Amino acid sequence: MYYIGVDLGGTNIAAGIVNEEGTIIRKKSVPTGRTRKSEEIVGDICRVVLDIIEEEGLTTEEIHSIGIGSPGIHDRENGVIIYNNNLNFRNVPVRKMIQESISLPVYLENDANCAAIAESVAGAAKGEDYAIIITIGTGIGGGIIIDRKLYTGFNGAGGELGHAVIKVNGELCSCGRKGCWEAYSSATALIRQTKEAAEKNPDSKILELVEGDLSKINAKTAFDAAKMGDKTGIEVVDNYITYLAEGLANMVNIFQPGIIAIGGGVSKEGEYLLKPLREKMKSITYSSYGLEEGRIVTAKMGNDAGIVGAAFIPKV
Amino acid sequence: MYYIGVDLGGTNIAAGIVNEEGTIIRKKSVPTGRTRKSEEIVGDICRVVLDIIEEEGLTTEEIHSIGIGSPGIHDRENGVIIYNNNLNFRNVPVRKMIQESISLPVYLENDANCAAIAESVAGAAKGEDYAIIITIGTGIGGGIIIDRKLYTGFNGAGGELGHAVIKVNGELCSCGRKGCWEAYSSATALIRQTKEAAEKNPDSKILELVEGDLSKINAKTAFDAAKMGDKTGIEVVDNYITYLAEGLANMVNIFQPGIIAIGGGVSKEGEYLLKPLREKMKSITYSSYGLEEGRIVTAKMGNDAGIVGAAFIPKV
Repeated sequence: MYYIGVDLGGTNIAAGIVNEEGTIIRKKSVPTGRTRKSEEIVGDICRVVLDIIEEEGLTTEEIHSIGIGSPGIHDRENGVIIYNNNLNFRNVPVRKMIQESISLPVYLENDANCAAIAESVAGAAKGEDYAIIITIGTGIGGGIIIDRKLYTGFNGAGGELGHAVIKVNGELCSCGRKGCWEAYSSATALIRQTKEAAEKNPDSKILELVEGDLSKINAKTAFDAAKMGDKTGIEVVDNYITYLAEGLANMVNIFQPGIIAIGGGVSKEGEYLLKPLREKMKSITYSSYGLEEGRIVTAKMGNDAGIVGAAFIPKV
Repeated sequence: MYYIGVDLGGTNIAAGIVNEEGTIIRKKSVPTGRTRKSEEIVGDICRVVLDIIEEEGLTTEEIHSIGIGSPGIHDRENGVIIYNNNLNFRNVPVRKMIQESISLPVYLENDANCAAIAESVAGAAKGEDYAIIITIGTGIGGGIIIDRKLYTGFNGAGGELGHAVIKVNGELCSCGRKGCWEAYSSATALIRQTKEAAEKNPDSKILELVEGDLSKINAKTAFDAAKMGDKTGIEVVDNYITYLAEGLANMVNIFQPGIIAIGGGVSKEGEYLLKPLREKMKSITYSSYGLEEGRIVTAKMGNDAGIVGAAFIPKV
């Protein structure tokens, strides 16, 4: 049996056919055209899905279901995207619209939860009963796996780990609240912190790396400067990892997950990020007295997480 | 069938016989004598348990099990209290010690988790699949109910909700970390905040209520002053509820529980506490877009929570 996963983002609609092992055997993407009407965007989803099924020489009888992951809030039961800020979707009955042209079950899920599903079923958290998956990007996406199932609370909106406050009255977050973890530990926050440090320290390597153009600073810049031994770069990275550690230590004290998997661009720093992170967490987590401690690792599914996680929604 | 619950605290050993409905039909308590040896303390537990069984005219055949709730960290599988700061217990094999004189199954659990069990099985959260129970006392005790079962993570130490940081580098917490929710929203924290405000505002009603003796300030003092219209009292209460709201909003954004039940002394303020609390939480939680919202209520089990929760450990 095969599963279709669709990663419906603000930039691209990426669809893939996924086998039972979690491997994408064929994929295709088209621009979302995010300002278009929902009918046009959903129409494109159908076209891409039908295309890859045909190109792979399959029939819909060989497909288990279509899963769609996108940011925002979903009514899973009725297959409706209630709210998607990127696409300006409000109460769009995506399942019904797709089933008008493809007669397959259609599942919807939040994109951060899809990343968690992918890591749980086929990635870094495979085989773990309790896992937390964090995706560091524009925001901090969180996914909670309990008893190998996705946890979303009584109304389906749980798991907004990035919107737990770590500093009351702190930095303004995109959600309107002040001091959210996301406002300190997202890639967006790291870029802001890097810019501020570069402005204060014009002699640092940071400005050199971006040829004096602050707008070229990305989430890698401070890490690159730090690796060159630049004092300001080292400070920015250390400060960033401190905030990340505080938020993750909260997750440990609350959930004691067997594994925390960190995905998104920043996670590509690998052990350069994880080693000091584990060190900083050691003194602020409650795992002592000889208790077994959960592992902290990078996510494995990379860019495939969106498609694989969406495809595997019915598995969790 | 009846269940024995033992609330093993730093001050008293309170044991009770609980029926299937969660009612304590007989109870008895003796001083813990917390500096005594573990053998003596466990010996007293056995004596009190045997006493109440006999006084009620029951036999051990009519008792399902003995559950013991105490602060600290437990090895549930092997029935060992790994660490209990109040009693100076380190790796005490309580189950084995009790079973030397009473041949019944013995269960151990953290006291905050026992409070959560009591509310879930017989109290304010009865019938709810997803619940968070907070006990405001010396610290902030937390208990997580998922699918009507107690959630404790992969190593059994999860649910330390009071030790999630809400203010990085903030007030020093008893756990050694800085800025924990407990350091702002426990009764201990409220007393500290009340004292500080009374010192800064010697003309407030607070000092009057305690006859000028700061050491007489308790967790009720600021609320009493506020109810008399005292400006300083109102400020202390408002500030305290803000911190409580921030921590609870975190729990909502993470868990979206169907219910949050708040117990402990401060919860006796009832709607005087809950009304502004709900109001403050409204703007900082993620429950919008027409999603159903969880309820916030006071816990129901009061002082019985420890015994009933311990008795019902095997039920969750």
